[in-house]
Amino acid sequence: MKLGRLNHIGVATPSIADSIRYYREVMGATEITEPFDLPEQGVKVCFVSTPGETGVNEALHSALNGTQIELIEPLNSESPIAGFLAKNPAGGQHHLCYEVPDIAAARAWFEGLGKRILGSTRIGAHGTPIFFLHPKDMMGQLTEIMETPKAGH
Amino acid sequence: MKLGRLNHIGVATPSIADSIRYYREVMGATEITEPFDLPEQGVKVCFVSTPGETGVNEALHSALNGTQIELIEPLNSESPIAGFLAKNPAGGQHHLCYEVPDIAAARAWFEGLGKRILGSTRIGAHGTPIFFLHPKDMMGQLTEIMETPKAGH
Repeated sequence: MKLGRLNHIGVATPSIADSIRYYREVMGATEITEPFDLPEQGVKVCFVSTPGETGVNEALHSALNGTQIELIEPLNSESPIAGFLAKNPAGGQHHLCYEVPDIAAARAWFEGLGKRILGSTRIGAHGTPIFFLHPKDMMGQLTEIMETPKAGH
Repeated sequence: MKLGRLNHIGVATPSIADSIRYYREVMGATEITEPFDLPEQGVKVCFVSTPGETGVNEALHSALNGTQIELIEPLNSESPIAGFLAKNPAGGQHHLCYEVPDIAAARAWFEGLGKRILGSTRIGAHGTPIFFLHPKDMMGQLTEIMETPKAGH
């Protein structure tokens, strides 16, 4: 496998509305998507765009955008994020997501290495297949693997 | 202030050698800098490059590289990373680093917002001035602000 693009950093938050205000008013973000629910994953999410290497950030899905911040709020107390927030009430960094060209090949790669995969391959927040790997097998990092969207992000 | 490029994600590790092997052999990284000591910060660090939006990763400091992973190992038990590893023995995500064009203006911005800055502005791993902000004032994220290097990274 070849290391893919760092698509996003997942950041858990007790309030996506507060986080959006923080990213706008404190950090100066200008491109933030509308939050939407992913009920099968028990979370509400939105994405904060950061500029790419050239500093250009003209449009959300331009060719030069950088890694996004995915804000994640639990939909209910059974949400997988609820436990994280119980330990980290202010929120914080939750996972790293790397792109791959072929999700099935990536899954076979990690399985071949004996890495624990958390559940089945499913459709993620960007509309492409994703899976998660156990942080204990990934140097402490909860790692999401995501198939690169075919036309932009 | 305008949100700057996400320069790197800081990842703490009990062993930079093990982390380098992991990024090469499991994640398929090809561009990893030689580790070096930052004794005044009590850490040894190196950087793993990830490809930018186009998937191009021709050289470490090309114009199209993505966000880097900074691997951080404590130099001794007094290291600021030692406490993090005591709580997270396998390592894990430690901080987020955003670029700004002017470190003094950024410091004044955050001070004006009443955000707690951790220590003085100092020279960071990329050779430009940096400072850290308290995670409790930053939605749970230990945040590094770094002046963009004048010619590439």
